[in-house]
Amino acid sequence: MDECIFCQIVNGKASARLVYQDEQATVFHDRHPVAPIHLLVVPNRHIDSVNALDETSTPLAGHLLLVAQRVAAQMGLAASGYRIIINTGPDSGQTVFHLHLHLIGGRRMRFLVGD
Amino acid sequence: MDECIFCQIVNGKASARLVYQDEQATVFHDRHPVAPIHLLVVPNRHIDSVNALDETSTPLAGHLLLVAQRVAAQMGLAASGYRIIINTGPDSGQTVFHLHLHLIGGRRMRFLVGD
Repeated sequence: MDECIFCQIVNGKASARLVYQDEQATVFHDRHPVAPIHLLVVPNRHIDSVNALDETSTPLAGHLLLVAQRVAAQMGLAASGYRIIINTGPDSGQTVFHLHLHLIGGRRMRFLVGD
Repeated sequence: MDECIFCQIVNGKASARLVYQDEQATVFHDRHPVAPIHLLVVPNRHIDSVNALDETSTPLAGHLLLVAQRVAAQMGLAASGYRIIINTGPDSGQTVFHLHLHLIGGRRMRFLVGD
């Protein structure tokens, strides 16, 4: 999986503005932010997408949500609010096939989905 | 929590178009769909939002993602793709304060966030 950019970031082989890392998850700034705060929460091990989750990865999936919550709180978003978006496959616009949660905040999001 | 509309749906006291239910989670159609398929995945027990998750609810949080994946597959979205959105607090537009995952598919979503 050397060619996966998110694997490279997790392993320190590609640069990113890291904000959090533990044994299971890494959080860093999106390179093309759509809001004042736009982070990506990724599992350290390579998982293509939500489609590749199974019963054994349920605790990891839950951990990713909890990490998103805690990092959101650290960034001062707990009260103002934030959105978590997980894209899977072509209709969603998923571009990197290493599972990632977008954590977006710092501005009002009026609509659930853009066009 | 009798006044919570999603608790009422989980308990069969309010009507909704259910598509899935197990001991921990319920899935039903959103009343105001933004796409051909727009479902809500909710925990059966009342949790206000992602902000209210803690270490003990990590397995439940992971289960919600796995349920979303499986229901997406049942709806024929595994290959075409789908988006999962979880809103927390005012900036995100969260309107019902019972944790819910929007599962959206059946059309192309060009942008990550609307205005």
